[in-house]
Amino acid sequence: MTDARFPSAKLTLADPARDSDALDFAHFADTMATLAGTVCIVTAGRGANRVGRTITSLISLSATPPSLLVSITKNSDLDHTMRAEGGFSVAMLATGQFGVSDAFAGQRPPERRFEIGTWDTWPSGRPKLADAATAIDCRIAGMIELDTHCLFGGVLINAEATGAAPLLWRERGYHHL
Amino acid sequence: MTDARFPSAKLTLADPARDSDALDFAHFADTMATLAGTVCIVTAGRGANRVGRTITSLISLSATPPSLLVSITKNSDLDHTMRAEGGFSVAMLATGQFGVSDAFAGQRPPERRFEIGTWDTWPSGRPKLADAATAIDCRIAGMIELDTHCLFGGVLINAEATGAAPLLWRERGYHHL
Repeated sequence: MTDARFPSAKLTLADPARDSDALDFAHFADTMATLAGTVCIVTAGRGANRVGRTITSLISLSATPPSLLVSITKNSDLDHTMRAEGGFSVAMLATGQFGVSDAFAGQRPPERRFEIGTWDTWPSGRPKLADAATAIDCRIAGMIELDTHCLFGGVLINAEATGAAPLLWRERGYHHL
Repeated sequence: MTDARFPSAKLTLADPARDSDALDFAHFADTMATLAGTVCIVTAGRGANRVGRTITSLISLSATPPSLLVSITKNSDLDHTMRAEGGFSVAMLATGQFGVSDAFAGQRPPERRFEIGTWDTWPSGRPKLADAATAIDCRIAGMIELDTHCLFGGVLINAEATGAAPLLWRERGYHHL
């Protein structure tokens, strides 16, 4: 069983006294839609308790420790499972895996998402998507709770890259390099 | 002058007692090289004090407040200038702007980087790259100091998208969609 203890912090970004300077929602959404990102599935749990979500909010974080950062919706099932388990796994999707992306982005209810794609298991017990461009297993090294999202810093404990070309997301649609 | 006060937190991810489970550096670097990202320049300061750096570590963060997150090398000139100023600006590069990317990735010394590209100014005084795919000006809403990097949560206060195709980075080289 994974030791779920890790350092955490909490920070509130919203400030009603100052936020009148911010873009309106449509302008914000249109602006961020121009950012191209690799389509990833973040997963945690095992067996019938597996949960997962499509995200593009993943960045490399540091070489010491060798870590990446993911942003996950606060108080989602995925957030809760990741915290309880002290870890998560990631699949950077290959170009042909848009169906997996759609399923985990909400086209399928949470309990039926793992019917799409071929799912193996990491030594940790967490889900591992076969034929992904890159599959990674992480132990959570720390967490920051913000207003609507939680940032998880994960130390990479296992990783495999297949050499497949990646699936990208930009302007509300899929793209290839 | 911008009010530079914003909430901050500090979190250490490295844990010598546990980090023997991590990938070695080469495996980590090769794994993260498979992540495709939009090439961005993060800038702050004004006039002769402008500083900037090429990054791919930018994600959308939250709609409330309308914010993005960037990861910046801790104790760099850019980190210091952003903290002192309480803000930063971002340019998501267009496909033709690889020369700007090279300059701000280190091919040019810090004091000569703004000679490359056409730099205008946001109402805040911060640098604004002309002809970028997307240019954004942010007020810092909060900061998290980690081991080697600082995460800045920025509220978007200005943004312009030109419709240009973006410049991407993957496997240590430039790509287009």
